[in-house]
Amino acid sequence: MLVVMRKGATQDQIEHVVRAIEARGYSARPIPGGERTAIGILHNRGPVDPNWVQGLPGVKEAIPVTRPYKLVSREFHPRDTVVAVDDVRIGNGSLVVIAGPCAVESEEQALTIARHVKRAGAHLFRGGAFKPRTSPYAFQGLGEEALKILDRVRRETGLPIVTEALDHTVYDLVEEVADIVQIGARNMQNFSLLRRAGHSSKPVLLKRGMAATLEEWLMAAEYILEGGNPNVILCERGIRTFTDHSRNTLDLSAVPVVRKESHLPIIVDPSHACGRRDQVIPLSRAAVAVGANGIMVEVHHRPEEALSDGAQSLYPDQFRRLCEEIEPLAQLYARAPEPEHGPAEAQAAG
Amino acid sequence: MLVVMRKGATQDQIEHVVRAIEARGYSARPIPGGERTAIGILHNRGPVDPNWVQGLPGVKEAIPVTRPYKLVSREFHPRDTVVAVDDVRIGNGSLVVIAGPCAVESEEQALTIARHVKRAGAHLFRGGAFKPRTSPYAFQGLGEEALKILDRVRRETGLPIVTEALDHTVYDLVEEVADIVQIGARNMQNFSLLRRAGHSSKPVLLKRGMAATLEEWLMAAEYILEGGNPNVILCERGIRTFTDHSRNTLDLSAVPVVRKESHLPIIVDPSHACGRRDQVIPLSRAAVAVGANGIMVEVHHRPEEALSDGAQSLYPDQFRRLCEEIEPLAQLYARAPEPEHGPAEAQAAG
Amino acid sequence: MLVVMRKGATQDQIEHVVRAIEARGYSARPIPGGERTAIGILHNRGPVDPNWVQGLPGVKEAIPVTRPYKLVSREFHPRDTVVAVDDVRIGNGSLVVIAGPCAVESEEQALTIARHVKRAGAHLFRGGAFKPRTSPYAFQGLGEEALKILDRVRRETGLPIVTEALDHTVYDLVEEVADIVQIGARNMQNFSLLRRAGHSSKPVLLKRGMAATLEEWLMAAEYILEGGNPNVILCERGIRTFTDHSRNTLDLSAVPVVRKESHLPIIVDPSHACGRRDQVIPLSRAAVAVGANGIMVEVHHRPEEALSDGAQSLYPDQFRRLCEEIEPLAQLYARAPEPEHGPAEAQAAG
Amino acid sequence: MLVVMRKGATQDQIEHVVRAIEARGYSARPIPGGERTAIGILHNRGPVDPNWVQGLPGVKEAIPVTRPYKLVSREFHPRDTVVAVDDVRIGNGSLVVIAGPCAVESEEQALTIARHVKRAGAHLFRGGAFKPRTSPYAFQGLGEEALKILDRVRRETGLPIVTEALDHTVYDLVEEVADIVQIGARNMQNFSLLRRAGHSSKPVLLKRGMAATLEEWLMAAEYILEGGNPNVILCERGIRTFTDHSRNTLDLSAVPVVRKESHLPIIVDPSHACGRRDQVIPLSRAAVAVGANGIMVEVHHRPEEALSDGAQSLYPDQFRRLCEEIEPLAQLYARAPEPEHGPAEAQAAG
Repeated sequence: MLVVMRKGATQDQIEHVVRAIEARGYSARPIPGGERTAIGILHNRGPVDPNWVQGLPGVKEAIPVTRPYKLVSREFHPRDTVVAVDDVRIGNGSLVVIAGPCAVESEEQALTIARHVKRAGAHLFRGGAFKPRTSPYAFQGLGEEALKILDRVRRETGLPIVTEALDHTVYDLVEEVADIVQIGARNMQNFSLLRRAGHSSKPVLLKRGMAATLEEWLMAAEYILEGGNPNVILCERGIRTFTDHSRNTLDLSAVPVVRKESHLPIIVDPSHACGRRDQVIPLSRAAVAVGANGIMVEVHHRPEEALSDGAQSLYPDQFRRLCEEIEPLAQLYARAPEPEHGPAEAQAAG
Repeated sequence: MLVVMRKGATQDQIEHVVRAIEARGYSARPIPGGERTAIGILHNRGPVDPNWVQGLPGVKEAIPVTRPYKLVSREFHPRDTVVAVDDVRIGNGSLVVIAGPCAVESEEQALTIARHVKRAGAHLFRGGAFKPRTSPYAFQGLGEEALKILDRVRRETGLPIVTEALDHTVYDLVEEVADIVQIGARNMQNFSLLRRAGHSSKPVLLKRGMAATLEEWLMAAEYILEGGNPNVILCERGIRTFTDHSRNTLDLSAVPVVRKESHLPIIVDPSHACGRRDQVIPLSRAAVAVGANGIMVEVHHRPEEALSDGAQSLYPDQFRRLCEEIEPLAQLYARAPEPEHGPAEAQAAG
Repeated sequence: MLVVMRKGATQDQIEHVVRAIEARGYSARPIPGGERTAIGILHNRGPVDPNWVQGLPGVKEAIPVTRPYKLVSREFHPRDTVVAVDDVRIGNGSLVVIAGPCAVESEEQALTIARHVKRAGAHLFRGGAFKPRTSPYAFQGLGEEALKILDRVRRETGLPIVTEALDHTVYDLVEEVADIVQIGARNMQNFSLLRRAGHSSKPVLLKRGMAATLEEWLMAAEYILEGGNPNVILCERGIRTFTDHSRNTLDLSAVPVVRKESHLPIIVDPSHACGRRDQVIPLSRAAVAVGANGIMVEVHHRPEEALSDGAQSLYPDQFRRLCEEIEPLAQLYARAPEPEHGPAEAQAAG
Repeated sequence: MLVVMRKGATQDQIEHVVRAIEARGYSARPIPGGERTAIGILHNRGPVDPNWVQGLPGVKEAIPVTRPYKLVSREFHPRDTVVAVDDVRIGNGSLVVIAGPCAVESEEQALTIARHVKRAGAHLFRGGAFKPRTSPYAFQGLGEEALKILDRVRRETGLPIVTEALDHTVYDLVEEVADIVQIGARNMQNFSLLRRAGHSSKPVLLKRGMAATLEEWLMAAEYILEGGNPNVILCERGIRTFTDHSRNTLDLSAVPVVRKESHLPIIVDPSHACGRRDQVIPLSRAAVAVGANGIMVEVHHRPEEALSDGAQSLYPDQFRRLCEEIEPLAQLYARAPEPEHGPAEAQAAG
């Protein structure tokens, strides 16, 4: 349930509604808007009767929310969330490019690639310190050593850092270094990790699980917002299907649907989606054209020697070409508002 | 097996190789190229020993073909196939737009929509005369009456016609009117229909089955080429997955893979892929950006009254906006060669 | 809509209701039951208002049918359909075993296998004359020659014959020889073929398409029943999923759901589901235990020499062991009614 | 690589081989067998050259292991692992039945259900204390309070307890009470949790992830064995597919494949696979017939009031009927060895 206050509602009236909601055992979350305030009702199991709310002073209307997600919903929060990291803005209509190797392998490797991708136009640097690996015998990442290297990469290149926290015990370590903490596809429903991310002051990049519906994905983001962290960036990275010409199937229709249903920014990772270098550039162009707020691609200067996922890493000159190819697209589409996709009710409530 | 002849090979040498192949019980199919001729060996069950071929006069080399498809393969036919319909060229680097209603419902409906889409920039008109319907109680199309209407649409608007042949008994009727005969997703492995299409002089638009691998799809096209019809246009229209936010999942990585593996043009149908009007425009942009040779979209002037698939049909003004949005993309990408995607071996053989 | 007549309703009253339905432009299909008659209303696009029907003389009640299928539904026809072929009954609680090679390769091969499977306990013989093949270069079956061989197999062994009709042009030929005509998974939505089967006097074995929902499958059967042929046997043969340890994933929950939703018998083909010999016996046991009316398995005396699908064919002694293993199961479960699975409304209407 | 020692190999020879392996930077894991010892080589990235091993004293042969999993493999450990919990044995040919509610809701609820399922024949009691929930607003389980209730259930009924550990911070608490610790489908690739389970003295029930291949699943089990805990029970619970008549698709062919590839016991959870009460009994019978070592089903005495997953919980009398129906099956199949499924090489090595 979303309670929309009148334009001239006083602070007292708002607090009165909040207390009335809490007196019934629910949680109330005021959402200040430009012209008016809305108040979300959380922790209600079943539907809430709108009648007692609508009679309270200052209340304009009570909108039943049919989606199971609330805080991530456009109905709740009509304007786009813009995540700020240093000078970079994610979700404001510009196109953000995140690039770097799958895993940090050495200081020399990370710095070499970081300088390349910065020169080509990347806005953030990605590199894994702790790697989730299907096999216990595979390279698991350099761990804390990699975090120190990432710190040096940022100091030298100025690129903010995106790196993954595999579990809540390493979250403290990762959070200290990362500008954006990544939660991987396999952890999308690791609810302890989501709760930990909810208590973090750092933005979270939440990858879609490979068999997750959009609703499950948005509910995972809801855990983070419900914990108090509003800065979540969603990342589509392909779903598991019967096909065998790509590792996963990139589900680009997720982008317009998420932008319609939610105010959170959404980026696309074509590298993990396809798993093959020669599909990365065309899929990156498609991701930009479909309206994503950014892309995240893997780049390695010696992919044939990479300790993980070399087959999907672009060579530096391919990455430069990719940046050139998407530049005009970004100007055409990422900045373009899509008015027909905004839910009318949400706009009315804003 | 592909036998590549030397540049200066004589016609006699070519015929000698053909006879030698046939003497061993295989079929030989000469493929003239710009500078040299290649000869495909068909109907061999297992691998063919290259030694006896390589010793024949005029033979440069014998290339084992590991893919199960041959005639559709770039290894066989390195240059892009360009399908010509009146003035329209499909596969030559320009972007082709096919538009129209799901089903022809009346002359007034078809003409109204055809005039709209022509004005907005469509190159061909689509409209179903015979409709494959899940239910025997659903509208099955106007049949022959619709074919007559389509004929009038072409005469009045000049737009060439794409319409579906549901089975080989109606193929004769459809073929008379259609400029391109469509084979639908449910019929992708209707081998009788594929054989009938192989004997047709009209180009064929072959939709991907909703659970078909790329190999199965290319093998279906192989049936048509093997029957003697080289003018096949492939059409990606989404695959069936677990997702529920779109009717199917558009598999855009199929586009670069097909363009690499095959010389046939490939277009994308975002309307059937998503099944929801508000995803059609973003997915169309993505299809163009990924490098498709064209798109096919459903348009209806009164979609809420459409007898089939109204929910996915664009309004005429949405279609006009779509055409405007993809225009700059088409100039950027569809004409751009993708040199890194061409198979080096094939180019050497060309 | 299903109109249920009172127990003592006269023939005149029934005919009056039929005429009233037809006067409104629908089709009426009386379904005589043990104690009373029900009348199905077909060819209605939207919902039918029950009021005018309920007021007619002799009408007990009018039940809205929410499923898109009607004739195949238990709501329409509460009692199990039993398909009779010579002495064999499919759907009456006994377990039917259909066995034979994927394709008929020679008279010697077919007869050898037929004698084996008869001795082991098979009730029907299967063997392909016309084979749907992904590749135009693969063995396509012996065609009419195979039909003659199948005829001889029946005369010599007494086993009724199941064989596939690939399209409606060969349906006449196949129908003459086959005791049950198979429609394959790739043809499940070949609507011309379904309509042809609807006009046949021979029972039809309708395989589930590899990406078909149960609703789509039952609607395909509805085409056949709507054409006038009530003898349809459904066959679950695995669906396409992301897994790679079996060719398809056998969806055994389809069996109880189909038995609840429909009166048609349902059998299981574990050979095509898994594609690997060593999974056939365990999956056959599971199919019997889940409550299928029968199984269809591939058997070959020299599978390593089979012209198609040898890898999934059982050796004759494996087939004998299979028959021994399922014998006690068949007695335990196939005959057991599952009262809790019958829809209460349907039983009331019977 | 698996090094198989000769029958009469001395302890000195074995230790010498171990040191030689470790000197090359690998790990060695001796696996004592009935007649001879095998030594696994772990932590090798690429293939290991077998030549230097084969020349060492006492070595019979060196078998390259092509599967990525090792400790869970039958090649490594040919005999079935039997997990012992009090008097219950899982994996020894008897059929184990685990039953109970989805979540522990109160002492009265848990005890009532536990007494019911014990009387009907269940061997272990299941009940969730910490529940993984898609929504942060849904019932998350009673937590530690539920663990105390489970302890009382065991003391009163004697049934050993199966309950889930959601993350490694609660593992200590769960481990104290549980006789078997469950790792849920969403956590199948939560590698921190798998490592924690590897250091536990309690057996682990590892559910298959809903989009996991068998190889990924076995690799997840490999993490636990590699950590030192050999007592892993695998649990098939359905995979995510396009179907909509059941929540997931139960993949029963996983059972024979896992039994062939691995020595670990495998059970089936039909309740989560289908999500609908009326499919649980038929799928349970199928699971037993296919050769599973056990089943795990949800039972609730008032499912319509259950706080989670009531729709898939059996009523107590349905559970009793289920136990009666599978009893004869269990005697027929679970005890039956499947000699043709054992890998010949592994048996030779044993």
